[in-house]
Amino acid sequence: MSNMMRRIELARLPAGIPVDEDFQLRGLPLPVITEGQVLCTTQYLSLDPYMRSQISGRHLSGEIGVGDTMRGETISQVLSSRDPGFAVGDLVRCFGGWCSHSVHRASELTLLPGDFPKPSLALSTLGMPGLTAWAGLHCLAKPKAGETVVIPAATGGVGSVAGQLARRAGCRVIGIAGSDDKCRTAVSELGYHHCINRRDSDLAAALDTHCPSGIDVYFDLVGGDMLNIASERLAQGARVLLCGLMADYNSESRSAGPPPGLWIRARATIFGLVVYDFESRREEFLREALTLYSQGALHSNEDISLGLETAPAAFCRLMRGENTGKVIIAVAEER
Amino acid sequence: MSNMMRRIELARLPAGIPVDEDFQLRGLPLPVITEGQVLCTTQYLSLDPYMRSQISGRHLSGEIGVGDTMRGETISQVLSSRDPGFAVGDLVRCFGGWCSHSVHRASELTLLPGDFPKPSLALSTLGMPGLTAWAGLHCLAKPKAGETVVIPAATGGVGSVAGQLARRAGCRVIGIAGSDDKCRTAVSELGYHHCINRRDSDLAAALDTHCPSGIDVYFDLVGGDMLNIASERLAQGARVLLCGLMADYNSESRSAGPPPGLWIRARATIFGLVVYDFESRREEFLREALTLYSQGALHSNEDISLGLETAPAAFCRLMRGENTGKVIIAVAEER
Repeated sequence: MSNMMRRIELARLPAGIPVDEDFQLRGLPLPVITEGQVLCTTQYLSLDPYMRSQISGRHLSGEIGVGDTMRGETISQVLSSRDPGFAVGDLVRCFGGWCSHSVHRASELTLLPGDFPKPSLALSTLGMPGLTAWAGLHCLAKPKAGETVVIPAATGGVGSVAGQLARRAGCRVIGIAGSDDKCRTAVSELGYHHCINRRDSDLAAALDTHCPSGIDVYFDLVGGDMLNIASERLAQGARVLLCGLMADYNSESRSAGPPPGLWIRARATIFGLVVYDFESRREEFLREALTLYSQGALHSNEDISLGLETAPAAFCRLMRGENTGKVIIAVAEER
Repeated sequence: MSNMMRRIELARLPAGIPVDEDFQLRGLPLPVITEGQVLCTTQYLSLDPYMRSQISGRHLSGEIGVGDTMRGETISQVLSSRDPGFAVGDLVRCFGGWCSHSVHRASELTLLPGDFPKPSLALSTLGMPGLTAWAGLHCLAKPKAGETVVIPAATGGVGSVAGQLARRAGCRVIGIAGSDDKCRTAVSELGYHHCINRRDSDLAAALDTHCPSGIDVYFDLVGGDMLNIASERLAQGARVLLCGLMADYNSESRSAGPPPGLWIRARATIFGLVVYDFESRREEFLREALTLYSQGALHSNEDISLGLETAPAAFCRLMRGENTGKVIIAVAEER
């Protein structure tokens, strides 16, 4: 075992869409833990669009500045422990960041259940993105059978679970994605009735075609113009989940929202959704999702890269919309 | 009794804020009713901001074109009846328009209860504006004691009732209005804790001062910049009622909404409110409001002009924000 660790820092502020050179890999001595601390090795690191807004200082979880270590949720394994609650070899969920190793107090660690099917799933379908999709649909929008649900970023971490849950609720589910490949995945694996390629379609016309009675639920992960176009097509009593702003993350400015008259006309209810608020319901979500997964009724759509050093490139691909599912770095595995 | 009636038509499309010359008063013969019809004389006519968006063709109730009679809700009295359900002298609520007389079928008329305190109230505190305020607070936003409620257009038809209901719910109630006089009325008669004069204040700074814990409920009747400024100051779990767009009614264009990130950050719930949807709950509202009114606990803030011919000027004042309460024309009374 090496007595070194590696971590990735923000090297400079990205201009627009990030590039590899905005990040820097550093080696440094492995920390020595004191009483009450746990040293972990990172197994899987989750990369998510919200990290771009942390870099811009616009995320509610706080800012990442130049020279700071990039943060992120991880599945990690206990390497040494000076807390009686954790033993060497335990798999835990924590915010280990873009690092090969991390040090935590016990309160920062959540033990993965022993029967957990596959650790990376705790960062994707059965983790934060899955919980986000479930909270939005199950707790807030509550789609009814026969309603039309539209999900942009259809094959991403949240969208891929939201699509499947909406389909199971008996809804007509229309996705929007950025490539023909993603659209195929959406329909063949994730239960979408149809997926619109936003790069080669007139989105407004395509929504008119595929949502003839309007949109009952719009699970917004994008913001920007797509939110306007969707808002113009809401059915009476529609619900809109505001959950992500992909269209703005790479920009200095914030897009304005749709004219409020569109939402008045539809008698819409709009929910600002932050997944952190649903931590208390994670167990309930996990029970339901594990049951579905064990029945083969919940497909996982992961885009896994091997090795910590691939994180910058994978994040840049994510921010260009070129990922093919929930982006995860298998940190402990070599490329 | 004259055998003539008068009505006011739209003479031309207003450019921006309407002026008197945009309307035209016409005399014409009194209609003769046939079986199943009821002829009414208008007692009171309600003038409301939404009429400006009917003229622009942007209201969900349909368009008013050049040469069309201006529409509006009225309290009218039955002058002659060929329907067994209505007798001469009955007071009814209907959409009689900007007219001295109107002809209806029975299904278009709602009899005013015999013990109704004052007919004009059926167009203000105990009518559509009151129902709007009640629906927004009682059915949607549900403010709790101790929460901060902010109401722009604080002394108008909806705002004056909303302010009082929010105060009764134990909330801290902050109004926004366009003159010192209105602000005084808001505080001395309508139960507001404070009212900000938007014409001579830095609204953002004033809201910071008077809503130190943020805004829990924003009852939007205005849209535009004020909605942005309020959205930047929402407390966690805030509710926003989108109910009016005064800032846009005189404009050709529609203001964009606030950046969605503001609503995500606040975990806000936004409701598009259209009062027509709450017609089924009017009785429930009316019982509560009549009880309060009879106890002297619901102040009515009406701005009444005498004579149908005053309607254009009163409407223009309303659209300049110079009314001092719910604008009503006492049609049957001479100036």
